[in-house]
Amino acid sequence: MAELRKDPILGDWVIVAPDRAARPFDHDDMDDVALLDLCPFCRGNEAATPDAVLTVSESETPDDWTVRIIPNRYPAVATSDPASESPTAEFFERTAACGYHEVIVESPSHHHAMRELSLDQVFRVVRAWRDRLAEVSSDESVNHTMIFKNEGVAAGASLEHVHSQLLATSFIPARIEAELAAGQQHFQRTGRLLWRDMLESELAGKERIVTSNDQFVLLCPFASRFPGEMCLFPREPSPSFETASDSILEQFAAILVDSLKCLDEVFSNAPFNLALHTAPPRDQRRDTFHWHLTITPRLTGIAGFEIGSGSWINIVTPEDAAARYLAALD
Amino acid sequence: MAELRKDPILGDWVIVAPDRAARPFDHDDMDDVALLDLCPFCRGNEAATPDAVLTVSESETPDDWTVRIIPNRYPAVATSDPASESPTAEFFERTAACGYHEVIVESPSHHHAMRELSLDQVFRVVRAWRDRLAEVSSDESVNHTMIFKNEGVAAGASLEHVHSQLLATSFIPARIEAELAAGQQHFQRTGRLLWRDMLESELAGKERIVTSNDQFVLLCPFASRFPGEMCLFPREPSPSFETASDSILEQFAAILVDSLKCLDEVFSNAPFNLALHTAPPRDQRRDTFHWHLTITPRLTGIAGFEIGSGSWINIVTPEDAAARYLAALD
Repeated sequence: MAELRKDPILGDWVIVAPDRAARPFDHDDMDDVALLDLCPFCRGNEAATPDAVLTVSESETPDDWTVRIIPNRYPAVATSDPASESPTAEFFERTAACGYHEVIVESPSHHHAMRELSLDQVFRVVRAWRDRLAEVSSDESVNHTMIFKNEGVAAGASLEHVHSQLLATSFIPARIEAELAAGQQHFQRTGRLLWRDMLESELAGKERIVTSNDQFVLLCPFASRFPGEMCLFPREPSPSFETASDSILEQFAAILVDSLKCLDEVFSNAPFNLALHTAPPRDQRRDTFHWHLTITPRLTGIAGFEIGSGSWINIVTPEDAAARYLAALD
Repeated sequence: MAELRKDPILGDWVIVAPDRAARPFDHDDMDDVALLDLCPFCRGNEAATPDAVLTVSESETPDDWTVRIIPNRYPAVATSDPASESPTAEFFERTAACGYHEVIVESPSHHHAMRELSLDQVFRVVRAWRDRLAEVSSDESVNHTMIFKNEGVAAGASLEHVHSQLLATSFIPARIEAELAAGQQHFQRTGRLLWRDMLESELAGKERIVTSNDQFVLLCPFASRFPGEMCLFPREPSPSFETASDSILEQFAAILVDSLKCLDEVFSNAPFNLALHTAPPRDQRRDTFHWHLTITPRLTGIAGFEIGSGSWINIVTPEDAAARYLAALD
């Protein structure tokens, strides 16, 4: 049974989910992993997974699905509250880890990489993200949602069939909490929106902008933690990804495809993570939040200084990364 | 030239050090790395490194060194302030990254692992940590120091000869800042020391204690972020590692050797990080801080949820890890 534990010094919540240790791996470049005989995410193998919670299909036949969202078999959080909880004491605060942990199967075919998908298919995937986020956010016990992707073993993938994940939790994670607080403080001080102001300064300076379209800007953040990190912002601040219209998402899909192209041209086959930051559904500070997507190539390891200090050493300047990405799009 | 950049949203400092991208690697299990012909850390090859800033020797002959501390050839921070700085603007605050980045060569012989060192040698190493920390802390521009170790490629090591690193910076990293604030708040609320109270609760419960001696307690933290994480605390709260006496450090070395034995017995050859948290030398909250060492096996990757949210999913309970370590010491 998964539980949330509060760090007695820092106050952050950690998810302790021992059942996840049992999950299978199908990459042959890892030690001690069994190759799976059958990919549970390929069309035709639906019986190997739990029933879908959302299916996108282009025809009347549900078997003809193009995107499929299923519960994670090895969830970090559970959908129902257990009857009994472990005791909580001073310094040792704990509670059941409730929420949703789901897998978005991004193609019926055994593709390994999101960059192999067509623009139409990426558009279907991001609409599925939106629709499922809207659905789980309506559950009143959910206080935070995140879509993320681990592509490549070094980025944390355990199955190679192209997929992303949705994790909805009862707590707001530390980094999102800090973003919410920053957005609110900036608004209280200036009457303006933090991400809009930051984006205007970036657009004026240009040196970290990779590309843009009518609705989105792709840039390498000024204080990037990782070499080649990118961030995708809507030009018009909007708290929630899950309220984005189809026409917004069409442009989002297009620039996301551009970002994957950049990544592949500059750092061929680089493992990477995506993380979609959207306003927690029931937080009072949501109006001053601005949804965005981070794209993090995993080219260097995370070492003792980062683990110990929570600070980061980045060996590639974001200006250099942006210039290389920009050249790749020419 | 390395610089510090302040995250425009979160306010955290990131070190951007492009010169570090040029550093050599000598592990043959990484892609695209050149094996070094000569290990710069072995006795006899001293000319391949900058001059030592501290040398421990058991005889009158300095060539007979047992521990050697040298400036890092590819430093994340520079020891001198550059004449000109890049311009700072709203949202884009930056400053030169000044401080000390040094390598502690932990043996004159080409050992790959700290567990291969004798207890006497580990005692010499931790005294060298203390003495050099005391020295760099006396520089008034230094506001934070950390000793850390990356052992194994997956833990971030780029050279295999057993070594640790010292990084002294002008800024206090995010995690240490949060620890300082927590220690002060607990003291203001209760008149007591946070780490002492937490440690007393851990000792009363016993279920996460691995081992202890007169001066130290080794345990798996209640809200461990990583499978098998351990933390080593002095029983008597003390802000600074650099004021520890030789007799304290003798016991510290002994329990550190025990922790490495646990790690090796339970997770053979696991890559790991050490991070020594000691009170920032000039911070007003240092009296309510408590130095400690974290020992982090790197058995699982860090994936999209952790990168995006700053929260952690741990697939091994600390109680399970502590029981396995305890059995290994029998």
